[in-house]
Order: sequence, then C-alpha cells, then structure tokens
Amino acid sequence: MGEIEKQRIAALQKLLKEAGIDYYIVPTADYHNSEYVNAHFKMREFLSGFTGSAGTLVVSAKEAGLWTDGRYFVQAENELQGSGIVLYKMLEEGVPKIEEYLERNVTDGQTIGFDGRVVDAFFGKELEKTFAGKDITFVYDKDIAAQLWQDRPARPVSKLWIVSEENCGMSVADKLTKVREKMAEEGAKYLLISKLDDIMWLYNIRANDVDCNPVALSYTYVSKDKAVLFIQTEALTEEAKLHFEKSDVLCEDYDNIAEYLKTCDMRGKVWCSGADISYMLYKVVQNRTELVDKKNPTELLKAIKNPVELEHIRECYLKDSAVLTKFLFWMKENVGKVSMDERSVAAKLDSMRAKIPGFLDLSFPTISAYKANAAMAHYSATPEHFSIIEAEGLYLVDSGGQYEGGTTDVTRTIALGTVTDEMKFHFTKVACSMLRLADIKFLYGCTGRNLDIIAREPLWQCGLDYKHGTGHGIGYILNVHEGPHSLRWQYRQELPETELEEGMILSDEPGMYVQDSHGIRTENIIETVKENKNEYGQFMGFRHLTYVPIDLDIIDTQYMEASDICKLNAYHESVYNKLSPYFEGEQLEMLRKATRPI
Amino acid sequence: MGEIEKQRIAALQKLLKEAGIDYYIVPTADYHNSEYVNAHFKMREFLSGFTGSAGTLVVSAKEAGLWTDGRYFVQAENELQGSGIVLYKMLEEGVPKIEEYLERNVTDGQTIGFDGRVVDAFFGKELEKTFAGKDITFVYDKDIAAQLWQDRPARPVSKLWIVSEENCGMSVADKLTKVREKMAEEGAKYLLISKLDDIMWLYNIRANDVDCNPVALSYTYVSKDKAVLFIQTEALTEEAKLHFEKSDVLCEDYDNIAEYLKTCDMRGKVWCSGADISYMLYKVVQNRTELVDKKNPTELLKAIKNPVELEHIRECYLKDSAVLTKFLFWMKENVGKVSMDERSVAAKLDSMRAKIPGFLDLSFPTISAYKANAAMAHYSATPEHFSIIEAEGLYLVDSGGQYEGGTTDVTRTIALGTVTDEMKFHFTKVACSMLRLADIKFLYGCTGRNLDIIAREPLWQCGLDYKHGTGHGIGYILNVHEGPHSLRWQYRQELPETELEEGMILSDEPGMYVQDSHGIRTENIIETVKENKNEYGQFMGFRHLTYVPIDLDIIDTQYMEASDICKLNAYHESVYNKLSPYFEGEQLEMLRKATRPI
Repeated sequence: MGEIEKQRIAALQKLLKEAGIDYYIVPTADYHNSEYVNAHFKMREFLSGFTGSAGTLVVSAKEAGLWTDGRYFVQAENELQGSGIVLYKMLEEGVPKIEEYLERNVTDGQTIGFDGRVVDAFFGKELEKTFAGKDITFVYDKDIAAQLWQDRPARPVSKLWIVSEENCGMSVADKLTKVREKMAEEGAKYLLISKLDDIMWLYNIRANDVDCNPVALSYTYVSKDKAVLFIQTEALTEEAKLHFEKSDVLCEDYDNIAEYLKTCDMRGKVWCSGADISYMLYKVVQNRTELVDKKNPTELLKAIKNPVELEHIRECYLKDSAVLTKFLFWMKENVGKVSMDERSVAAKLDSMRAKIPGFLDLSFPTISAYKANAAMAHYSATPEHFSIIEAEGLYLVDSGGQYEGGTTDVTRTIALGTVTDEMKFHFTKVACSMLRLADIKFLYGCTGRNLDIIAREPLWQCGLDYKHGTGHGIGYILNVHEGPHSLRWQYRQELPETELEEGMILSDEPGMYVQDSHGIRTENIIETVKENKNEYGQFMGFRHLTYVPIDLDIIDTQYMEASDICKLNAYHESVYNKLSPYFEGEQLEMLRKATRPI
Repeated sequence: MGEIEKQRIAALQKLLKEAGIDYYIVPTADYHNSEYVNAHFKMREFLSGFTGSAGTLVVSAKEAGLWTDGRYFVQAENELQGSGIVLYKMLEEGVPKIEEYLERNVTDGQTIGFDGRVVDAFFGKELEKTFAGKDITFVYDKDIAAQLWQDRPARPVSKLWIVSEENCGMSVADKLTKVREKMAEEGAKYLLISKLDDIMWLYNIRANDVDCNPVALSYTYVSKDKAVLFIQTEALTEEAKLHFEKSDVLCEDYDNIAEYLKTCDMRGKVWCSGADISYMLYKVVQNRTELVDKKNPTELLKAIKNPVELEHIRECYLKDSAVLTKFLFWMKENVGKVSMDERSVAAKLDSMRAKIPGFLDLSFPTISAYKANAAMAHYSATPEHFSIIEAEGLYLVDSGGQYEGGTTDVTRTIALGTVTDEMKFHFTKVACSMLRLADIKFLYGCTGRNLDIIAREPLWQCGLDYKHGTGHGIGYILNVHEGPHSLRWQYRQELPETELEEGMILSDEPGMYVQDSHGIRTENIIETVKENKNEYGQFMGFRHLTYVPIDLDIIDTQYMEASDICKLNAYHESVYNKLSPYFEGEQLEMLRKATRPI
C-alpha cells in the first residue's frame, strides 16, 4: 500500500530537480476555485493517494507533506500509509501552516513552483508577502506533474443550455448594464470574472462541468462596450451561439484567456477579485495595469433574487418540501419493517426527487447520517463505511436538488423510535433556534453578524454551540453555497460584511452534535422580505421557503417559551396549508398529524 | 439680538483678510477632543452666540455658517438670530457636510485656516484628502480669533491628585510595562498620547480640568526607557512630584509639547492615534517619522478593569444605587404633595449623592426629564426652560457620580401617577430588553455588534426602536463614556470592533421615545464575566452592577415571556438582598414592596 504514490512522488522529485524547482505546491482546486473539483483536476489525489476533498501537497527533495483539516485526519493517515508522505494536521498545536513551513525551509536563492492556474491569487499574494525582500523565485507557468499522469481524465466539457428570460427574469443586456454601472462606480474600465456561477448568472447560461454545480468552465472580460465569454468550443450549441449573438456577447476559446489578457485593450483599471481568480491570471493583469481587488459586482446582484426568480423558487421549494416530507413519513412508517441503510434510503430520496418535474440534478451529494454518524461534520456514507438503520435513535438527512425553478437545500432530523431526554432537549432547542431566527424583524442595515446570535442564544444559554455558520446564501439553479451574505458571528476585520437585502435567500440551519451519540440539524431556507417602514427606518424580516414538518416526537415543550410554541404551531399550520395540495388519503392524514398544534 | 456676534464675525473677517486666510474653521473642542469643553475653549460659542455643545463655525469673506445636528436646530435658530450666521442643519437632505461645502467653494490658490490644536488629525486628514492635488494651502498654526476675545476665561488648571495603588490595583511601572509590550508588538518605538483619560489611567492621577471628567490637561510621550508627562506646572503638587519621581516619570511643561516633539529622539515609528490627537501635533510627528495610527494601547488596557477596581466598583454601585432608589421612593411618595420641578428634584438627587462617602463630583450633568421632555435626546432643563412635575405620567432620570471607588451611570423611568397602556407597553418592552441583554451567555470573541440585537429585538419585533447605542464603556474614576468596546449594531467597515473581555464594564440602556408624549430608558451598568469553559469555547456573561428597582407600576406582564418575568423577579430579589443593608424601617418596607415578585 502506498507504493505507487511513493514512486509518483519520486518521479515528481526528479522532474522538479530537472526544472530547478525546490518546493512544489499541489492544492485541491480547479482553475476557478470551485467548491467541487472534477476528476481532471485531482492532481493532489493522484500524487498522494489521499482522496479527501481538501488538502494540499508540498513536495521538495527532502520530503513530501500533505496538509489537511480535522475532518480528514483519520482518513489521511490510512490513505497515506506506505507513501512516505508526512501528514500535517492543520490547526493542531505545533503544526506549521504551509506558508510557515515554506518560510522555515526555503532558503535564499531557491525556487517555489506551482501550477498558477489552480492556486488562487489570495494564496499567491500571501506567499509573495511571506518571501518579500528575499531572493526566492516563483515558477507558476507549468503543470509540472502533468506528464506523470498518463491516464488523466479529460477536462470536463458539457453542452451549454440557456435559462430563458421568462425563467430568470432578466436579460443579459440588463444584467450587463447593471454590472457596468457598478464598474463605473468603482472607476474600473474592465471587469475580469473567473467565478463560474457569476458568469452563468450574467449570461443566463448553465452547464454540467462541475459536480452538482450547473456551471461551465469559462471566464469573462467585460468593458464598457464589449463582453467576451471564454468558453470551451465543444460547449457551444447552436442555441447558445444564437443566444450570445442576440445578447451581443462575443465568444472566445476558453484556453485563450491568458493570451487574450496579455494583448487585449487594457487602458484603465481592471476589476478582478483576488479571492476568486487564479494567481496566473492575476499576475497577467497586474503586470499590465492597476487592479480593483474586490468581490465581483455580479456576486451581490446575483444574490438578490428578482421577483420572477422568487416566484419560481417558492414553488420549487414547495414541491421539494412535499417530496422530502413523504420520504420522512415513509422512513418513520417503515423503519424496522423494511431493511434500510444510510445509502439505500439516500438513494430512495434521490430517486423520489428525480421524479419532480423540472429536476436536473442534486444540488450536493445527499448527507444521510444515522445516530453518531450525524455528529460528524461532512459525514458521507461510502460503500465501505455506512450504517444499517434500525427503529431507534435519530436520523439526519441534508439534501437538495437542482431544478429548472431553483436550487434547494433542506435538513431534517427525525426520531426512528425511542430517543433520550437529552436528544429531545437538544432537538427542541435547535427547533426554537431555527424558528426564532426566521421570525425576527430587524432594521435594514443589519448583516448576518448582527442576527446570528438569535439562533445561537437558545444553545449558548445552556453552554452548547454548533461549530458551523448558521446560514449561507443559495443560488438560483446554481451553487447551493453562494455569497456574499451569510449568517455567522465571528469577527474578522478583513472580511467585509453584506447587508441583508430584500430578495436574498439564505439557509437557517442551527444544529447540535454530540460525539459518539447523535447529531441534529434543522435547516429551512428563508427569504428576506421588507416589513413596514416607519420613522425608525425600513424593517426587514424573513419568510420560510421550506415547508417540512419538524418531528413532534422529539419536541419537549418544557424547553420552550410560550412564544416558541406559538411559532412552531404557526409554522406547522402553514406547512399543512402549503403541502396539503400535494397529499391525499392516508398521507394527508399523516401530514395533518405531523403538523398538529401542540 | 445677535448684534455683538455680527460685529465679532466682521472683526474676524477682517483678521482673516489680513492673514490671507479665505476660509476659517472653528470647531467645538479643546486640545484633546474631550467630551466636555471648558469655557476657555468655547471660541465657537464666543464668535457665534450659539451655546449648544456641538457645532462648527466656518467663516469666509462671503458668509459665516454654523453646522450643528438635529438636537440643536431649534436652539441654534433662536440663538443665531440677528447674527447673520447661516445655519447648516447636519444630515438634513440637501445640506452639505463641511468638507463638501469647502470643496464646492474653495478655489485653487486659496487658503483654509484653523487652530491646529483644536482640530483632530482625523478631520484634518479628511480635509487633506478632499483637496489632494489642488493648490490649497492650510494654515493651522495660529488661533487667529484669540485677539478678539478680550475677557476669555483662563485655561483651566487644577491640582493633580494621586490614585493610590490600593485603590487602582496597579502601579504606574506595571502599566508602563504593559504599554511597552503593546508598543513592541506594533513595532512602535515611541507612543504619543493626547487622550486625557488614557494619560490619567497610565499615571494613576486625576484632576478637574474638564467638567465631570476628572482629568488634567496633559500629553505623554513614552519610549522604551523613558516616560515624559507634559503637564501644567501649576497642577504639580509636592505629592504629585514625589509620585512621578517614584514612578520614574519625567515632567515637562504642558506648553512645550510641540517644541519637544520637534527636537526629541524619534528614530523609529511613533504610535499616535489620529482620532484622538490634534492635527497640529500629528503633523509635527508625521514630518519627522513614520506613524502607527491606531487607537492608544492604553484604551483597551484601561477598559479591562482589574480585580481591585472591580471590587471598588461593585461597592460603589451599591451605594449609588441605594441613594437613587431612596430618591425615587421620595419622588413617588411626595409628588403632588411637595412642589417639584425638573431642576429642583435633580438638585435634590445631586445633593443626596454628594453625601455618599467618597463622592467627588457628578459624572455628567443629571438629566431630569418629565413627560414629553424625556423624549428629547440630550434634553437638559435650563433656568429658562423646565417643567413642573405633577402626580401623573412618566419621569426619567439619567445620572451618575464620580467617587473614590468608581464612576457611576444609571437611568430609571418611574410613574408618578396614572400612565397609559402604551406607556406600560413601551416600559415593559424596554425592561425586557435590558434584562435579556444582561442575562445572555455568549462565546468569547463576540463584540457589541453581535449582542446588540438581543436588547433591540423585543422592540424591533413591534416595529419600534431607539435611535441610540445600547451601551458604552465606563471609566474608573474617569470619563463616563469610555471605549473601545460598545454595544451597537450598525456596520461600518472602517470601524474596528472590540471583543468583550472579562472585567469590561458597560451600560445596558435600551429606551423608547415618543415625540410630544414620553421617553423611557432603563439603564443598568453590567460587568463582563467568564462563565464555564467547555469543548465549545469560553462562555462569557454579564453581572449587574446597578441595583435599583424597576417600577412595577408600569410593568404589564401580558407583554412578557415567562422567562422575562423570571428575570425581573430574580433581578428584584437581588436588588432587595443587595440594598436592604442600606435601608431600614418604612423605607425597607418600600424596598420590599418595590422588589416583590410578580
């Protein structure tokens, strides 16, 4: 075990020696810093044998080291066995960060190499800072390890499809106008975008180049009177060509982006988000002109859903909610009678979802976690490791779909039999957290940092917490995780916050996790709405988009305020009203029971 | 009316012409940006006749304009009558800011003047930015208007007194060590402080040069091995001289600061807070070396009260609470029987406070406001305008003292007879806001921006709000308003936030104001404490320092959650337990009744 990887590292070390590179960095990323990395880009996995979704390999003549985080320590230890690769456990005491490791080891006159297309500008600039004033050379124009990977999967390419204006509510021309207004405000003559969901939104296109994210590998370069889309030619259907022609968008080959940027018109500032663009392209631009390094203007525009999108989203969430509810009823009815495991029930839910009209794909791989497995963040059942589900304890399912009318995300935890008082206590508190946050009113100007405590306080009051954000934005037929807004409490001076705007949708997903015992998360998606406006300002609030019962078998009213009980009953009443058209007969009766007032 | 001011402005215009100055700015400030401005520094009032506490005068050959904020529009309109001075109502639509006004009017080749000692560096730098690249000269080394003010009050100077180590818990030497550690962290070789409360804290001294703030006009310049205090020689008592000698602090004359900074050792960065220092001194330093423009290290150190300070503060607040409680009992008992007005009852409270052992001064002028007057922010009864108090409606009193054991601040609103249901509703919500905030638990790392919504939510939920912060820090025998921490929700990217630390004390003062009707504020001071620490992190919480009953005559439980009632009862139980040693006989009975469980 690990023998192949040992040879691969040795071969890489030989190549590095020939190329005069002393330290070579291999991150886990595609050219666009996408959340999911296609097989073609899994160079780090190929070289190291470590299959986790996050990790960075650093290879020198002296050693090969792999940096990964707490989710993957056990897995990495197993998978790295025999490879000779040293595991660096990130955030553990005494373990250096990659920059620190390099700072300690790299000496004057040495060279650091990486494929500048898969390292983002943010990290690249950190490296520059680390070695400022020292005689260190960066080589980032070669994918040195590429020649070692003989049977490398091809770069993904899928056919583009168009989101009609009736479906997305805004023409490409109107979107470009808005983007150009923002450019003018920032004094930027050009805008270079590498973030795939931003590009899809701008041009009303979608594809399947990244798992679960309906996006196409692409770049765009926008000026006052020109919009150029860099796209793989195989992706261009006749319909797409027509669409771009009509929208006055020029197409260039995806692989020409760097050459284009080296020679194109660039007399003025270029807006280019360093956190989203590759170091290589960043340097190309930086060598030619002044940069505006801020989040893409498309990010905020995209996050504020327009009325057409919202109408589709609301309907889409109802259908998705109905199916999840039916699935949960089926589980509660059949557990202990029918054989179930984490994978089989997830497959059932996925296939139920696939039958919803307009279904395109899952929005992320379904998390199906029983008992203690649900306490592990990012748990995923595998063919080798999964649990059999029996008629007891708690079951958590976090799932969602891509539809022609939106992108969904929802988590429910249910009891499959007897549960402990502690579980009821935790579940009830989490339900109160979710409902309280969804129910608040706040003055316009609040950001997620103001609001987060509303969800956390019921747990904090008991000395409990969940170690993840309370919520994230969600795309429209796009990525299930989307910025720039979020719900989190931690203060980071360097991180600009975003005011919550009417039409922003976000998840509201408090949880509670007890190692080796159980995991609870209750996640609704909520829509930001305007409430009344008066002398104090514009009040804002939320509306639920998700309508799935909260399992009353695990609710204990002794842990609730009177107003919490009202909120739960009101929510359940609306669940019944919204979902009942999708139910009939015995199932309708189950819905009535599951949403009964308490 | 206004004739004298008209002449003064004309005389100033003549001086400006002679000096070649086209626009002259007169702010309302002393050399240290103190909250209260001594008569000596009230140049703006002398020139304009406007007596409000905030305002800036700009004089050119063409016109004289006065900028002030909404609190003072009516007053300024009255007081400026006949002076020919134009009133610029700040934040009103279409009214330019001073910088905008200057930008529009000042033309190339012209000169802007101001006394660089009373304009802070922050504003000065804004002006520099506004006119960057233009041919505008700044003249800031002269107090041009000084010669017009024949009977100008002398600059204040009072005798220094020493806060013993037993009273403040930390020696000057230890404080200097801590400050020098912070300097080293920032890479600053020198530290220049102009903020008076920071200097008082650092050297364990106090004085009376600013109303209600027990501070001395001073500067300090600290290096690795030298600490120089610039102080008016008349302030130096023998005791003070001995204290400084013992503490290894060198004294220089207050008026030598600029000369000293021009010639002293300055081979390295100087830490100097641009928001707190005068433009003149900032420029002196900037012309010599590199600046670290951050809040003074003393600000955070001072805000975290040490155990000795906390012990004294707790005791001091009890005595202060007992006196305020007795005063409020007296009011409720005697209203309608004894003649009362806003000024007479404030005088009574002030004299009651003055009898508390260790009393030094008020910490700010007592706000005594009856009925609709309480709805006005910063209302202050004057000999000309004040209300008679009768046996009905609400009365608000916001007051505090300076004691040898601390600085207090407390607000209570009481019913003096029949009150409306709306008043009860507002009062009950505000009481819940105050108690809920004081009762929360939060993870270490939270700042006031995370917590503020806990106090505001009960009001926001009803579409109500108070247009002021929820809380501020408080000094120890020092300024009643103290940074760097605060409780507010608004997002300002340029404003760094401060995590709440064990030992920080702050006010918790939600309110509710209805124009022409009533004003309610309930203010307790709370102490930040550590709660339990577990796998989720260090939990933090608050403890009340203020123990004064919340008027049950205005509480209506229909507006409270069950837990709010518990919180109020628990608070009242502790009020009784803490205060009863200070009460006896009939008054003790009143205390028992005022703190009865509901």
